[in-house]
Amino acid sequence: MLFDQQFLRIPGPTPIPPSVERAMSQPMIGHRGIETSELLQSIKPRLNKVFGTKQDVLIVAGSGTAGLEAAVVNSVRPLDEVLVIVTGAFGVRFAKICEAYGIHVHRMDYEWGKAFNPEEVTRYLEQYPEIKVVFATYCETSTGVLNPIDQLGAIVREVSDALVIVDGVSCVGGVETKMDEWQIDIVVTGSQKAFMLPAGLTFISVSERAWNVIESNPNRGFYFDLTKYQNNYEKDTTPFTPAISLLFGLEQVLNLLEAEGLEEVYARHQLMMDMTRAAFRALNIPLLTEDKDASPTVTAVQPDDFDAELFRKTIKSQFGLSVAGGQEHLKGKIFRVGHMGFCSPADVLQTIAMMEIGMNRIGKEVQLGAGVAAAQQIYVKKGRENKCQFKF
Amino acid sequence: MLFDQQFLRIPGPTPIPPSVERAMSQPMIGHRGIETSELLQSIKPRLNKVFGTKQDVLIVAGSGTAGLEAAVVNSVRPLDEVLVIVTGAFGVRFAKICEAYGIHVHRMDYEWGKAFNPEEVTRYLEQYPEIKVVFATYCETSTGVLNPIDQLGAIVREVSDALVIVDGVSCVGGVETKMDEWQIDIVVTGSQKAFMLPAGLTFISVSERAWNVIESNPNRGFYFDLTKYQNNYEKDTTPFTPAISLLFGLEQVLNLLEAEGLEEVYARHQLMMDMTRAAFRALNIPLLTEDKDASPTVTAVQPDDFDAELFRKTIKSQFGLSVAGGQEHLKGKIFRVGHMGFCSPADVLQTIAMMEIGMNRIGKEVQLGAGVAAAQQIYVKKGRENKCQFKF
Repeated sequence: MLFDQQFLRIPGPTPIPPSVERAMSQPMIGHRGIETSELLQSIKPRLNKVFGTKQDVLIVAGSGTAGLEAAVVNSVRPLDEVLVIVTGAFGVRFAKICEAYGIHVHRMDYEWGKAFNPEEVTRYLEQYPEIKVVFATYCETSTGVLNPIDQLGAIVREVSDALVIVDGVSCVGGVETKMDEWQIDIVVTGSQKAFMLPAGLTFISVSERAWNVIESNPNRGFYFDLTKYQNNYEKDTTPFTPAISLLFGLEQVLNLLEAEGLEEVYARHQLMMDMTRAAFRALNIPLLTEDKDASPTVTAVQPDDFDAELFRKTIKSQFGLSVAGGQEHLKGKIFRVGHMGFCSPADVLQTIAMMEIGMNRIGKEVQLGAGVAAAQQIYVKKGRENKCQFKF
Repeated sequence: MLFDQQFLRIPGPTPIPPSVERAMSQPMIGHRGIETSELLQSIKPRLNKVFGTKQDVLIVAGSGTAGLEAAVVNSVRPLDEVLVIVTGAFGVRFAKICEAYGIHVHRMDYEWGKAFNPEEVTRYLEQYPEIKVVFATYCETSTGVLNPIDQLGAIVREVSDALVIVDGVSCVGGVETKMDEWQIDIVVTGSQKAFMLPAGLTFISVSERAWNVIESNPNRGFYFDLTKYQNNYEKDTTPFTPAISLLFGLEQVLNLLEAEGLEEVYARHQLMMDMTRAAFRALNIPLLTEDKDASPTVTAVQPDDFDAELFRKTIKSQFGLSVAGGQEHLKGKIFRVGHMGFCSPADVLQTIAMMEIGMNRIGKEVQLGAGVAAAQQIYVKKGRENKCQFKF
């Protein structure tokens, strides 16, 4: 890019707020000193509300996949039977991690773009009572689906003692998460999505039930052994060198989330989803997912009369606007617009205005401004209904 | 603001490009060391093209007004007669600076919102042959007028030996400036407008004719004495402590302007003006200036059926969007939208989308999206006409 401006609207990593950038630029501190302990003390209790849990939220230096692998190696033993609910590429990833450890994987595959059905999961568990863990994805980043994780824990518990482990990477922090109330045993997320940080931290919270399983597991690996993180958590330290700059940033992210108010943060993400979907509807461009399955953090679009890849290339070169392509068999068939983390309704309006011009440029005639107008109408309507001022 | 996002669309200071922020964060260097000399060597020749001059462009630590005052104290003596062309608040400022030094000021006052007429200036000079300097404003920030500076120098020279001194603060770097070709004797600008830097530097370039006047002037003050800056310029140093972080930033600004290409930079500003004006026209909201007088860097809007101040307050609290109000007798009657420096057509689209919602919020019913669509149409049309890709 000639001009020093980029619009990062992929479904994570997201842009970093300026105050978080500044926080991350603080001088380095000793990882075993009092400053790091104080930093951890400041951060720890504030993560609970984001996860909706009274359990400790452990912080591991690593990307989201590291967190998913830690969940697997701590809670499952080789040859154990597990069920992986696959609704897209990140469901597949859970299965691959399990397979890498010789775990016996049952897969329930859903059409990409659809959410799973919790009742089908219970029927499957009734059929295979040996299954010890159910793995599910909260927001399936590859399709923009938000799976019914709120119903999964309770319904599984009715028929099975299996642990329920959830990949919340691309939505926790942007979508309400009630780990305890929903009876989820492990929730994992990463720093580079709704947490508005660079990648490099993964967060893991573990239920009492899951701790019982983990503590009796003789092989938990070394770096990923969560009991080490738990023991150090209680002493305001970490078993291995913490990623301190990211922790500086995390503290400021928590300041921002608390200043805005978590309910407002979730309402903002819902609003941005509604605005984005209304815009594509107004432009007569099909969405991959139905409204009931749609995620507040990312929208997958399935154009039927223009080339998704040419479109992506055009808006990138024209405006520096990045949206994501499709993965696996959806490659070239969809594009995905992120609206999470450091993203406001004003950013959504701008993204739509640029995309309309991009379509026009590649010969897809859309009525310029029609998508923006539809999104503006949603903003005005929801703002009034909610009697709240969206102060972004 | 709860959320860490601000949209600074006043007519300067403008937002700072991220790479310029990073450049300004470099460790401090000694102001009399080789590093500072090398920094000045790198910057100096690259400013000439921006000013359209073969003369040296001197850099003074201070805001734009410091540069205007330096121009006055160096080129005028107390009791000298000067003509100040006043088209708005910054014309008034030139007059006030002169009056502070006991200079005999002739004022030609134009209605705020209109450009001056060069032929009227020459008629005035013919009437008052004792006038030694003509002061004029290139972009009058208070009204969004771009005055016909391109015609002023030559037409003055036909009837007078008066120096022509131009305040280019809110446009040089965003609008073509040809100091030599246009026979301007002194051009002054600041760092916080089209130069996309924080305030704190002012730039002054001086013609041969003006140097002759300055060198024979016995009282040039101390800090503002331009001969000191000129003597040090030749030695790659400065007479007083330079604002080094701003110089680090300036070097990167020049990198950005050169990478984009100055012609492209000017075309971008023109385009952003056209988009902004088309949007307000589409919304049936009056503009203060006529097309022929309009500045590519700032647009003044004069609403006839809603309260400009309530509107400004609403978009600030709603989106963190800042536009400027009116000054002096235009206070409360106009608002001014900046589109200069670190601002792209995509930013203009976003600003319009937010302003439409803001109008709606205060009860001014506009068709949502209509202004955005008009601006998008200009973008698409001009892009095609110019056969260029606006790569911002």
